[in-house]
Amino acid sequence: MIKVGIVGGTGYTGVELLRLLARHPQARVTAVTSRKDAGIRVDEMFPSLRGRVDLTFSTPDEARLAECDVVFFATPNGIAMQEAVALLDAGVRVIDLAADFRIKDVFEWEKWYGMKHAAPHLIADAVYGLPEVNREAIRDARLVANPGCYPTAVQLGFLPLIEAGVVDASSLIADCKSGVSGAGRKGEIGALLAEAGDSFKAYGVAGHRHLPEIRQGLAHIGGKPVGLTFVPHLTPMIRGIHATLYARLSKDVDLQQLFEARYANEGFVDVLPAGSHPETRSVRGANLCRIAVHRPQDGDTVVVLSVIDNLVKGAAGQAVQNMNLMFGLPELDGLDVVPLMP
Amino acid sequence: MIKVGIVGGTGYTGVELLRLLARHPQARVTAVTSRKDAGIRVDEMFPSLRGRVDLTFSTPDEARLAECDVVFFATPNGIAMQEAVALLDAGVRVIDLAADFRIKDVFEWEKWYGMKHAAPHLIADAVYGLPEVNREAIRDARLVANPGCYPTAVQLGFLPLIEAGVVDASSLIADCKSGVSGAGRKGEIGALLAEAGDSFKAYGVAGHRHLPEIRQGLAHIGGKPVGLTFVPHLTPMIRGIHATLYARLSKDVDLQQLFEARYANEGFVDVLPAGSHPETRSVRGANLCRIAVHRPQDGDTVVVLSVIDNLVKGAAGQAVQNMNLMFGLPELDGLDVVPLMP
Amino acid sequence: MIKVGIVGGTGYTGVELLRLLARHPQARVTAVTSRKDAGIRVDEMFPSLRGRVDLTFSTPDEARLAECDVVFFATPNGIAMQEAVALLDAGVRVIDLAADFRIKDVFEWEKWYGMKHAAPHLIADAVYGLPEVNREAIRDARLVANPGCYPTAVQLGFLPLIEAGVVDASSLIADCKSGVSGAGRKGEIGALLAEAGDSFKAYGVAGHRHLPEIRQGLAHIGGKPVGLTFVPHLTPMIRGIHATLYARLSKDVDLQQLFEARYANEGFVDVLPAGSHPETRSVRGANLCRIAVHRPQDGDTVVVLSVIDNLVKGAAGQAVQNMNLMFGLPELDGLDVVPLMP
Amino acid sequence: MIKVGIVGGTGYTGVELLRLLARHPQARVTAVTSRKDAGIRVDEMFPSLRGRVDLTFSTPDEARLAECDVVFFATPNGIAMQEAVALLDAGVRVIDLAADFRIKDVFEWEKWYGMKHAAPHLIADAVYGLPEVNREAIRDARLVANPGCYPTAVQLGFLPLIEAGVVDASSLIADCKSGVSGAGRKGEIGALLAEAGDSFKAYGVAGHRHLPEIRQGLAHIGGKPVGLTFVPHLTPMIRGIHATLYARLSKDVDLQQLFEARYANEGFVDVLPAGSHPETRSVRGANLCRIAVHRPQDGDTVVVLSVIDNLVKGAAGQAVQNMNLMFGLPELDGLDVVPLMP
Repeated sequence: MIKVGIVGGTGYTGVELLRLLARHPQARVTAVTSRKDAGIRVDEMFPSLRGRVDLTFSTPDEARLAECDVVFFATPNGIAMQEAVALLDAGVRVIDLAADFRIKDVFEWEKWYGMKHAAPHLIADAVYGLPEVNREAIRDARLVANPGCYPTAVQLGFLPLIEAGVVDASSLIADCKSGVSGAGRKGEIGALLAEAGDSFKAYGVAGHRHLPEIRQGLAHIGGKPVGLTFVPHLTPMIRGIHATLYARLSKDVDLQQLFEARYANEGFVDVLPAGSHPETRSVRGANLCRIAVHRPQDGDTVVVLSVIDNLVKGAAGQAVQNMNLMFGLPELDGLDVVPLMP
Repeated sequence: MIKVGIVGGTGYTGVELLRLLARHPQARVTAVTSRKDAGIRVDEMFPSLRGRVDLTFSTPDEARLAECDVVFFATPNGIAMQEAVALLDAGVRVIDLAADFRIKDVFEWEKWYGMKHAAPHLIADAVYGLPEVNREAIRDARLVANPGCYPTAVQLGFLPLIEAGVVDASSLIADCKSGVSGAGRKGEIGALLAEAGDSFKAYGVAGHRHLPEIRQGLAHIGGKPVGLTFVPHLTPMIRGIHATLYARLSKDVDLQQLFEARYANEGFVDVLPAGSHPETRSVRGANLCRIAVHRPQDGDTVVVLSVIDNLVKGAAGQAVQNMNLMFGLPELDGLDVVPLMP
Repeated sequence: MIKVGIVGGTGYTGVELLRLLARHPQARVTAVTSRKDAGIRVDEMFPSLRGRVDLTFSTPDEARLAECDVVFFATPNGIAMQEAVALLDAGVRVIDLAADFRIKDVFEWEKWYGMKHAAPHLIADAVYGLPEVNREAIRDARLVANPGCYPTAVQLGFLPLIEAGVVDASSLIADCKSGVSGAGRKGEIGALLAEAGDSFKAYGVAGHRHLPEIRQGLAHIGGKPVGLTFVPHLTPMIRGIHATLYARLSKDVDLQQLFEARYANEGFVDVLPAGSHPETRSVRGANLCRIAVHRPQDGDTVVVLSVIDNLVKGAAGQAVQNMNLMFGLPELDGLDVVPLMP
Repeated sequence: MIKVGIVGGTGYTGVELLRLLARHPQARVTAVTSRKDAGIRVDEMFPSLRGRVDLTFSTPDEARLAECDVVFFATPNGIAMQEAVALLDAGVRVIDLAADFRIKDVFEWEKWYGMKHAAPHLIADAVYGLPEVNREAIRDARLVANPGCYPTAVQLGFLPLIEAGVVDASSLIADCKSGVSGAGRKGEIGALLAEAGDSFKAYGVAGHRHLPEIRQGLAHIGGKPVGLTFVPHLTPMIRGIHATLYARLSKDVDLQQLFEARYANEGFVDVLPAGSHPETRSVRGANLCRIAVHRPQDGDTVVVLSVIDNLVKGAAGQAVQNMNLMFGLPELDGLDVVPLMP
């Protein structure tokens, strides 16, 4: 059994890791930390885990975490870069669900995240944990930068087009819609049911931190820089991201076949039949990205619809998938969940 | 492997059976019928099941169903009573998720359900499928009447009080709130998001079909008739029932201990610590009833809070639990789901 | 034109006062204060008021408020009792939307609100602002204690029964459901869409602050103490309270006629036809209480269904109604809103 | 007082007309028809209108409607084109909220709406009822084609850009999100709360009927054909449309000033300050379009955010605005509603 530690277990990605790992056949959570809620039983804070998780939140304790085989950071940005070093030195593998190691250009990172990077020497070493792109590198990684939720949905949607070089990569548009759990389990007025419920809005149009991450990922896939307009929106639901992607076709190609071929061997990406419109609920609770590709009115604009559960394929599920790869386990371990519908 | 048939697979209880059975280690669905949608692939109608269910809706075909070990009726009221006889004669065991065999008094049934009963001779034989009350009888049953959603939440909440005889059973009150999936997957205006969303209302105050079922169940438990006021409400959520139960205490008793003792060996009933308020989401997707018991202001009114997922412990999950009992399987088979939160 | 001041304009009751008063023909808001957000334009924080409210939040300034004819306190509990004295002394009439002056017994108030009362000498003078009970006293009041949201829905529902003495007042039950705006515009985790959405729960079963207020009001109406079990619930919607009330009938009476007669001359209470089930959305945005009365199965339990918009008849609308009474205006002024449906 | 008839009063646009006209100072509804629900009181079907509308649904009766000054068709597509002729001949002015007279090219109309047009001779005469474009023509119109909901939000958002010729009109993108009331008050499974709730999806990507309407409108505004990709989405809320519009800038221009200048004299279009993100709830219940314009990362893509209430500025409110224009009334009559927030 793999011994797992979770740093920052009281947020949505933390509790989602606990949900998924509770049924993992080869991994066992041995420590879950919370500076603020140390001493409280996990199932007292999260009654949904009663009978499943027999742990108490502890203060982050280096020694205890150092006994783990792998530690997940489900913390705000800026924590992992401070605390991962000691763990890595102790031989513990680390998966960071925050953004600390996602951007290769440290100056770019510092600009978007507004802080000094505490461990720039680790950035080059970190593997960007998108298995559909970096599977082999992830297997050997000691430090994985788990992708953001929007970046996962957007990159998987654009990937076949960019890889095949069939679209004008200089004018991509990603119009993305997220459920409110993406805002985290924090007492922010904007995320109240009375504020975000029964309403819809864009945010961060001037610039969102996931923009450089997506640009870097697509540039890596295509081998050259991309131009991207990224507009995130808040939608009155709990889980789910729907990315609506627009690109100008530069070559005539059978789009459906292109997508199906690219993802034929990917267990967590599902290309829907031509003409489909994926719903976010069709992946609720599951580590899946469902994709449909359209060419409206047979014009030269391709429209890709890509949905994930932001907490699963967009966060905790992908992190478990990465752990499975790192430890040579079947990718499906702990992720064998049927989406909850309705 | 147990061969399972599902009659009426396009409603919410049908698709929920498919979700749960997709991961059942000892059962395999071999036929799922729909008169209206025969010929359509299950995963075309329900994309959440893509990769999990490789079946096509078929017309109800007696011969094919007769090859099953057990057939679930996830049909509207009035179908099972017509079609179960032939299956039972063929040695197939039947679990009816509708109401056809729940009420022992056929005149009472016909009054509430507004139709003539087609198989009154089977009623006595049918076992009411509430395992916490009738576990032994269910094991040997060939015909199980799976309880209604409200009746499950209400009976499990009142059970310890009635069984112990510590409340005045002549003036019980059950104020119940249900998510809209309880109304079924039917095109009814009242269940539209634009109608039922962001609003709350009672319905059926004059009399709801679950009233006689609950009365019968509680009378069976307590050994004498009960008086019950039952008011159901529609709440703007998808899944979940919250029953708030009121009874007048007739004996001084440690309520917390009474409930904990009664359910100590029940794997699907969870008595919360004193002072708790269960949320419906804490059982979302899982075959669980979570209960809290209160005595406000130390008065003589006991208040029980009982929550279930109406589609799981209130329908499909309980049906699978009953199947497990009938075939000597571990009760948890196929039901090992961690609730989805948030 | 009446000059109106609002202390604490950034919460939901404050912004609702601004919405209603924006169209009041005889009143004009001249000052709206917020200690925290002073200097910010009202319509910058609340874009729904763009073009309607040309004011900037100011620091609470006694002099400026003292020039008003009436000041509304839309503040947390404990503020009005400190700041109202000076205004009253200056001849300003005060309507407190918080709880500071609702409970006549100061010891009871201090027990439930957990603080020392700062102006106990004003309590006797304050008029409880439920116009359907205290209309004449409100006209002459200089200090009005605006009722709580639950207390409004519950008292209006029980009123005809208690007043007529046709129920056993010793064992009343009020099972109440509220939208989340009742929790206020504060960054509390429990009121996040990702927490309170798609779920339902009770809270405060052991004791809620509105319990003594309701008990006091019903005792006043009936002329003797009442016994009441009050269970509030949080329902996943924004506005609205649905009170489901239970009482044991002690006299045979035509309930429909009793209710219709009692409210025949009340412009803001609407008794629905027999057999109705009021929806909270039928009063959305309007200063209305809609009520239906039932006697299920012709038993001896009467069930009253009472709905209000918690921010209007349960708070700001009732406050404006009180202001209208205090200044001799038509009660409908500023309250002539048709409910928003759907 | 203008005498108003409403044909088809049981849908959402019909009941919304009733809500708005209930407070119109110069108009009085004298007939509201419904083939299916004739004989039922309006306020029995819509309790939100109790005390406001004292009418009974009647069968469509030409004679009675012919006595009106204006008749609104709040019917499905295909009705007005059959029934308007006789009314127009009788001198009644007609406002069609459906699509029968929106498309000037009858062949195009017949292709998208799948039926033969019954009154093609009236099409040329019909005035497209977007006051911000066609105000003068509307004043004299005897037949107004009230715009669709998406077309209103999209055209008002693109209008300043197209009119000024500062974008490449050949590659416009409109990514639109609608609340479910846009689907109408019909018993469709896809619009159930249990289906559309807590989920998000695109629909009609291959081609939606509002596409030709928007293309025609923008071509009219710009004086030349446009290329448009239009993707509508269903969002889990009741009211509201959010259009996110993308265009390639062809000239450097002060976008904020362009928009503010264009709409300076429009009472129902509100250009937000630079950097804003309008929420749909900021126009809930009101005849308003709020717009923000962005140029992310100072690139050459302009992003316009445009929100309306689909039932008001996107349907009934705009229809009343058109009526006001046709009868020389102040445009604000009946539309003086402050948006409901929260």
